[in-house]
Amino acid sequence: MSGIDIEISEVGPRDGLQSISSIMPTAAKKAWISAEAAAGMPEIEVGSFVPPKLMPQLADTGEIVAHALTIEGLRVAVLVPNKKGAENACVSGAHKITIPLSVSETHSLANVRRTHAQVLNEVRDIAALIKDQPADKRPTLEGGLSTAFGCTLEGVVPQAKVVEMAEKLMAAGCDEVGISDTTGFATPTHVRQLVRAVRAEVGPQAAPSIHLHNTRGLGLANVLVALEEGITTVDASLGGIGGCPAAPGASGNIVTEDLAFMLDAMGLKTGIDLEKLLAVRSIVTQALPQEEMYGFTPEAGLPLGYAPLAQR
Amino acid sequence: MSGIDIEISEVGPRDGLQSISSIMPTAAKKAWISAEAAAGMPEIEVGSFVPPKLMPQLADTGEIVAHALTIEGLRVAVLVPNKKGAENACVSGAHKITIPLSVSETHSLANVRRTHAQVLNEVRDIAALIKDQPADKRPTLEGGLSTAFGCTLEGVVPQAKVVEMAEKLMAAGCDEVGISDTTGFATPTHVRQLVRAVRAEVGPQAAPSIHLHNTRGLGLANVLVALEEGITTVDASLGGIGGCPAAPGASGNIVTEDLAFMLDAMGLKTGIDLEKLLAVRSIVTQALPQEEMYGFTPEAGLPLGYAPLAQR
Repeated sequence: MSGIDIEISEVGPRDGLQSISSIMPTAAKKAWISAEAAAGMPEIEVGSFVPPKLMPQLADTGEIVAHALTIEGLRVAVLVPNKKGAENACVSGAHKITIPLSVSETHSLANVRRTHAQVLNEVRDIAALIKDQPADKRPTLEGGLSTAFGCTLEGVVPQAKVVEMAEKLMAAGCDEVGISDTTGFATPTHVRQLVRAVRAEVGPQAAPSIHLHNTRGLGLANVLVALEEGITTVDASLGGIGGCPAAPGASGNIVTEDLAFMLDAMGLKTGIDLEKLLAVRSIVTQALPQEEMYGFTPEAGLPLGYAPLAQR
Repeated sequence: MSGIDIEISEVGPRDGLQSISSIMPTAAKKAWISAEAAAGMPEIEVGSFVPPKLMPQLADTGEIVAHALTIEGLRVAVLVPNKKGAENACVSGAHKITIPLSVSETHSLANVRRTHAQVLNEVRDIAALIKDQPADKRPTLEGGLSTAFGCTLEGVVPQAKVVEMAEKLMAAGCDEVGISDTTGFATPTHVRQLVRAVRAEVGPQAAPSIHLHNTRGLGLANVLVALEEGITTVDASLGGIGGCPAAPGASGNIVTEDLAFMLDAMGLKTGIDLEKLLAVRSIVTQALPQEEMYGFTPEAGLPLGYAPLAQR
């Protein structure tokens, strides 16, 4: 995207809403996505094509994608757990499809009841499906490397295993892989080592993004290191809602507002208008009054006399 | 201190307790300090020699210092606002005395009702007083550069002004200066620039430490950058309690537990036993049941199978 140094990818409407029991009304989701796109958010993961019985919170994903596609300039991303979901995603016209693979096989079995081999087969099927779409309608296929920094069930996840799975996802037909700290185990040194290793294996252009949590308060410190290693897209969730329902004790996406403030204050162009972004929060709090929202910048507001460092 | 890469300086018993209206019983303060020192904390700012009428929370500072001095290996630090406080500090036997100077003169007037010139005069008097102490009893004198990253009253604080005040504090007789984000305005790029500029001016050995807040969630990201710039001592407060009572809207010291976890997980030796440190928290929550405690690591616990990266 022109004129943007670092892209934030808002995952709240998917990762956030799937992790809470409340169901946000479809109209509120649309208002949220529209307002955040109007604030300059370049990419929003708007939903997940999963069976409505399993995840009623996201049952309206088709309608949400259709709405999001009417917003000019917004990249519309969705998650899919399998080929069936990918078929629905292709029909919907989403620009980007992510299929997660838990590097911890224990977590994979707990989360989607599938082995690595089974997930990789599904990825190959999805890649073939996408290849069959008309050239101008082919979504980008991302393989999400879940539990890349550790697992609440297995504990330590070896770096070599993450690199192996990154290579296998690419070989199975993904356009790119995303490194994901599903469980909030990442630390700065670990981020540096793992991002470097994965990008060295698959090529930097095939591993542009990272998904970090703030489980132990290190989220933004981890982002800093990821940027130093060349990462250009960072996931975050408005108000920090969301986490991973199948990873007990794991919670807390990076807060979009705090991340956007940090990047802006560092003089990095995100395309986001901070004042407008902070105003989006009220849409979510009004629609989900019972859910806790996180974030320090929304609480403190912008510093007095604030201007991005680059503009001083 | 031998075998330590980065020192954390616990400021909760001073900065934390002065910012809340509850008064912690003297016995609880002693238990806190003892337990945290036993967890390996190398330095604790245990109180402030201010008039008890102004700050009844810290009226027992003399007794607290006496207790802390019985703990072998602990560096005992105190804050003083003026020469009278420094006299009391010298009598107490504290190892380190910090006198703050607000680089924002507006903040200085609001906080201690003094101009820069008046504070610098006081620093000269204190330096002379310290010189008169027996050689083996001379405390280290630190000048604290408050509001170094911005002021909730003045807004932007020019970097040149911070550097100027650092030089003047050293010329007035300080042994070292500490850079302090009193108001939570610091951002990673700003930390890098300011730490570099101050250390270039006074020499790196005279600016070893930084005091950062987590007001906008950037606390640990800012620490990372400070470490990259050579800082070796980082202030933090157990449970993140404290802030600056004269800077409206400013709140939230860096959480000791999260900082200690981050450094440890990065393979940096802090001398701190994380499990023991996390256990100290209960002393504070029991003594101050009505006060909010912050921190992500205490909530999430250490990751499953956790070991410092250096030991894997």
